[in-house]
Amino acid sequence: MEDYMNRTYLFLFFLLICYQTLAQQITFKVIPLGVKGGGDESNLSSYMVAPVNSDEYVCLDAGTLRSGIQTAIAKGSFSKSIDRVLKENIKGYLISHGHLDHVAGMIINSPDDTTKNIYALPSVLEVLRNSYFTWKSWANFTDEGDKPALNKYHYVPLDSGKEVPLTNTSLSVTPFVLSHVKPYQSTAFLVRHQDVYLLYLGDTGADAVEHSDKLKQLWQSVSPLIRSKKLKAIFMEVSFPNHQPDKQLFGHLTPQWLMQEMNTLSSLTGKDALINFPVVITHIKPPVAKEHLIQKQLLTSNDLHLHIIFPEQGRMLKF
Amino acid sequence: MEDYMNRTYLFLFFLLICYQTLAQQITFKVIPLGVKGGGDESNLSSYMVAPVNSDEYVCLDAGTLRSGIQTAIAKGSFSKSIDRVLKENIKGYLISHGHLDHVAGMIINSPDDTTKNIYALPSVLEVLRNSYFTWKSWANFTDEGDKPALNKYHYVPLDSGKEVPLTNTSLSVTPFVLSHVKPYQSTAFLVRHQDVYLLYLGDTGADAVEHSDKLKQLWQSVSPLIRSKKLKAIFMEVSFPNHQPDKQLFGHLTPQWLMQEMNTLSSLTGKDALINFPVVITHIKPPVAKEHLIQKQLLTSNDLHLHIIFPEQGRMLKF
Repeated sequence: MEDYMNRTYLFLFFLLICYQTLAQQITFKVIPLGVKGGGDESNLSSYMVAPVNSDEYVCLDAGTLRSGIQTAIAKGSFSKSIDRVLKENIKGYLISHGHLDHVAGMIINSPDDTTKNIYALPSVLEVLRNSYFTWKSWANFTDEGDKPALNKYHYVPLDSGKEVPLTNTSLSVTPFVLSHVKPYQSTAFLVRHQDVYLLYLGDTGADAVEHSDKLKQLWQSVSPLIRSKKLKAIFMEVSFPNHQPDKQLFGHLTPQWLMQEMNTLSSLTGKDALINFPVVITHIKPPVAKEHLIQKQLLTSNDLHLHIIFPEQGRMLKF
Repeated sequence: MEDYMNRTYLFLFFLLICYQTLAQQITFKVIPLGVKGGGDESNLSSYMVAPVNSDEYVCLDAGTLRSGIQTAIAKGSFSKSIDRVLKENIKGYLISHGHLDHVAGMIINSPDDTTKNIYALPSVLEVLRNSYFTWKSWANFTDEGDKPALNKYHYVPLDSGKEVPLTNTSLSVTPFVLSHVKPYQSTAFLVRHQDVYLLYLGDTGADAVEHSDKLKQLWQSVSPLIRSKKLKAIFMEVSFPNHQPDKQLFGHLTPQWLMQEMNTLSSLTGKDALINFPVVITHIKPPVAKEHLIQKQLLTSNDLHLHIIFPEQGRMLKF
């Protein structure tokens, strides 16, 4: 009987070790090409993501490319030329919404780029087609819209909640609609490699401010992945400090609204599941004094013990 | 009689000195906020210009603002915060055409900006109104177009050849239509302070390539100002090196096409008038190897002995 008990304990211990190893395994690498939410053209939202053992990335948003790649090279995240990173390592663009600070880098660099896909909701592709790749704002490097179409980029319309593979990578993505001042749509991208996930949210306001339930729906979709430790990180925006009035949030979050949304998530996952869970804060708006204030407000209101990460342009993150 | 001759010589000598002093007098200061013709989001076409004794500038194009102001501060061209330069020193924007690399900085920084005018040809304002300030690409910070109009920027339509004053500065501007792949319009801005001038050309191809006479018309308009030494400098684009085929110039110049246009100008002014005349080369496209090649090709084909200047982001030029 005692021998049986010992073997049972040993087996349970073995399972625990396996579980912990699995939980700590690194699956994704992310190179932020731009981390700010405004103004500084050299550092606007864009995050290259790839499986850790691969150099086949997609860009989550594309506000700044060349200037971010240059910084990434300077910080040792790449050891080749800017043009080669642009042409060879970025296999596609996932665009959360059509605001210029999320697409300018892709448009401006399109003449130097290679053939690739642009993945987005139909409402977002419509902005690219009707506002940017029009020959009036920019030559039409895509395969739809104002003629002649130069056929370098191929639009891939996404359906909310429906996973698609990301061509020339070993990644897939499931998009979820977000509200960014109704009825304007933004997108959350749930990126998958094998059975491990990473979640990136484009610009969005809190459900209570947006009079929406899009974030709640998103939390319901991803909370099982947090409980099972398959979701490795959430990238989420905080644009303004807490004193910004709700009426002047323009579809963005403050530290307290982010924490309120995290509380909603925690009510679905249980509090323990979020302890040390990586939350990468994107889209903080200048000036510097406000950037520091936002960081302080997040860290001092972190009752859930999230692992709050402030990304730096060009410096690789691993999850 | 000899006394009379002496006094005449003395008077002529005095006139010559006055003339030379006037010719060498500094009238304008220019701070390049962005000098490149592509790719690098941190350094796209934008030139702040003011009378040398004033801090009331306008921006000639606005591809990059904040990142350029930051560099200008680092290089000692300003000694105040980025936000104060943006809000207080830039009194208006002169936009040569609607391509994103000439307007992105203005659009992205509009939330932090103060009330000011945007001066452009009607065809250019149409691009701003219908493609950018639409609530789909960006909130409408202007006073026309998709509602609600936030009324921060006021559109001022320009007529080719007709001078208008630039509000809150002691400058005026006369626009001239340029061809940038027919029928797309770009603009040359002839900026005046008192009776002294500076000429800035937006993107354009050579007349021979564009099947146009817009540059010839421009040279005819400004050649008297060169002969009378009232024009202090020409800012003009060279995007590609000489080996770029004419069919792939996309409305841009090479060193040899620029020199051909300068020869046309010289046939109107006489060759002597262009010796040491400042020509500031804008819009050179990366990569670095091609940038160096363009510089070399310009300097080795400078039979007219122009004073060719390669501007540097943030470093003040005086004319």
